[in-house]
Amino acid sequence: MYDENIINEALDYTRHAVAVQIEELIQKKRSVKGAYGPLYDLLSDYPFRKGKTLRPAICIATARAAGGMAQQAMHSAAALEMYHNAFLIHDDVEDGSESRRGKNTLHELVGIPRAVNTGDATYLLALSFLLENLDTIGVSKAMHVMHEIENMARQSVEGQSMELDWVANHTFGLGDEDYYRMCTKKTCWYTFIAPLRIGYITGTPVWKEEDMIENLARLTEFGMMLGIAFQIQDDLLNLVGKLEKYGKEIAGDIYEGKRTIMLNHVIASSGQQSEAIRAIIRKPRSEKKKKDVNFILRQMDACGSIEYGRKLAEHFAAQALQMLEGLDFLREDTLIQPAEKWECGHMDKRLLRELVNYVVLRHL
Amino acid sequence: MYDENIINEALDYTRHAVAVQIEELIQKKRSVKGAYGPLYDLLSDYPFRKGKTLRPAICIATARAAGGMAQQAMHSAAALEMYHNAFLIHDDVEDGSESRRGKNTLHELVGIPRAVNTGDATYLLALSFLLENLDTIGVSKAMHVMHEIENMARQSVEGQSMELDWVANHTFGLGDEDYYRMCTKKTCWYTFIAPLRIGYITGTPVWKEEDMIENLARLTEFGMMLGIAFQIQDDLLNLVGKLEKYGKEIAGDIYEGKRTIMLNHVIASSGQQSEAIRAIIRKPRSEKKKKDVNFILRQMDACGSIEYGRKLAEHFAAQALQMLEGLDFLREDTLIQPAEKWECGHMDKRLLRELVNYVVLRHL
Repeated sequence: MYDENIINEALDYTRHAVAVQIEELIQKKRSVKGAYGPLYDLLSDYPFRKGKTLRPAICIATARAAGGMAQQAMHSAAALEMYHNAFLIHDDVEDGSESRRGKNTLHELVGIPRAVNTGDATYLLALSFLLENLDTIGVSKAMHVMHEIENMARQSVEGQSMELDWVANHTFGLGDEDYYRMCTKKTCWYTFIAPLRIGYITGTPVWKEEDMIENLARLTEFGMMLGIAFQIQDDLLNLVGKLEKYGKEIAGDIYEGKRTIMLNHVIASSGQQSEAIRAIIRKPRSEKKKKDVNFILRQMDACGSIEYGRKLAEHFAAQALQMLEGLDFLREDTLIQPAEKWECGHMDKRLLRELVNYVVLRHL
Repeated sequence: MYDENIINEALDYTRHAVAVQIEELIQKKRSVKGAYGPLYDLLSDYPFRKGKTLRPAICIATARAAGGMAQQAMHSAAALEMYHNAFLIHDDVEDGSESRRGKNTLHELVGIPRAVNTGDATYLLALSFLLENLDTIGVSKAMHVMHEIENMARQSVEGQSMELDWVANHTFGLGDEDYYRMCTKKTCWYTFIAPLRIGYITGTPVWKEEDMIENLARLTEFGMMLGIAFQIQDDLLNLVGKLEKYGKEIAGDIYEGKRTIMLNHVIASSGQQSEAIRAIIRKPRSEKKKKDVNFILRQMDACGSIEYGRKLAEHFAAQALQMLEGLDFLREDTLIQPAEKWECGHMDKRLLRELVNYVVLRHL
């Protein structure tokens, strides 16, 4: 169970607040003398396809749970969202994906060249938000946030690199630990760990170096548990979800050959059928037939791979929940401070708690 | 005429110095606990293919001409070089290019997915260098440099966007002014203007706001003249150069449909043949035949398009030279300061002067 109201309220607030930031910044860049407008139209596509804005919501909620104001986290939250959008644009190119947030992917719409360039421009807008931070939270915090983003982005490209290498090199025999390592880099850092850490850094009113290091380390661990649960659940939805709810192609991961927990499991446990599965996975995307994919889905069912993934996702979510309760430096009674321009009642530790449940229960 | 010794000495120094920086930083990132090594092998490919390291050389020379030390510009110079390499990786994907610096392009070697991701990782390393600046030149200058890089990168993605749009939208009827605008964004900013401005910012020992604004504006104009000369010359080399000297495909620009000064000129001045040229340019790269390309090359010769481009390049170089002489805040008698770890006698205004001649005379 999760409280849908708390989550929807927070995500709606965030979506709106971040959209305002993004619109303002795009407007600012577009109106620089001599700017080339059409790029900004392409830039505006993904961010204004209604995404979850999960990352900024986590960032803002953590800032408030740490005792800060939403505004302090706002530019960083927008930077995270732009970073996410840039990542999606390039990720869609890399995976050859066809749909995103219920529409065609950008490279399907405008071709790979312009999609790659628009992705670059979107990364750049994330950097621009980080520079805006200088005016809003001061040099010291702004610098901390930049270092966090640098680290996060490095983890992400490394994780992306691992996953792409596994597919390109036809790597099999991967265990759960391999998956966790890849997933921590590819998903956890940029979807959970960095938003949590950056939220805390921007929001905390006190700055004691030794407390910071300790608290940030605990947030990292919490984000890791939550992120692994999230990614396994995302992979499950890709296998068994409904297109209209999930927004991406169904079983696209199998077409792409992604080494999910479920794929690794079915290969390890399907005995004589294992080689047939590998042979399908080795095929390039364009040569995989629907019956190939259905064969693997049936094998996953038969071997309990789906159930295995589901149990693991629940296990990590339970771990995350337990860790969260121990994070005593996060508050759930954050008052709306007089200087705040907007309010969203439950955007503090309470939101983080609901999110843990949400990530494994959504769309089931 | 240009003094090859001054240029070679400076580029050799720079190549070595920047390679040391890049190797150090890659080693630092690679040795972070849990780092994924193979990404750093891909990352190391382009930067260690012997490039000209023109951008860092300009940056360092300007820092010294402004009265500073080479070290002050070093991290920024390395950032520019990483940015350039990232740009090349993505540009090669966007243009479908096959060779780069005498070898296969990265996406030819490892596929588009990993090339796009490695490009992202390379941009990130540029950001890492900018964060290293905090320790070497202090917060204030480091922040200035970041703003410069943000502006430069924005100009570049806009210029790239313009050029890609022209090809994708089958835009014809472009005049020289259109070309200058695109070229200023695509080439001048990141190859000349930003290296000059950043060199000046990092190197200048005095910081008077009104002088800074004035001097930076003059450097911008100088870089624009120089950059347009450079790009026209680069486009000329693409048409008439020798593969082993040029390092890229010959006439690749025609295959890609790039709107160079020479192409715009031949379309405007080839009368009845103009439609035939347009029809060829409209074809996708893979459908263009060698005889198509040769037809356009012959038309360019017949219409004087090559000669037209050559004259323009020389004109802009002459303009640049004249401007440079007026930049009295740049010195050419920079002494080797005791604190400097290495020395390169002519890396100051003298190098900039030789470079102006070099960009239009190279490989002729």
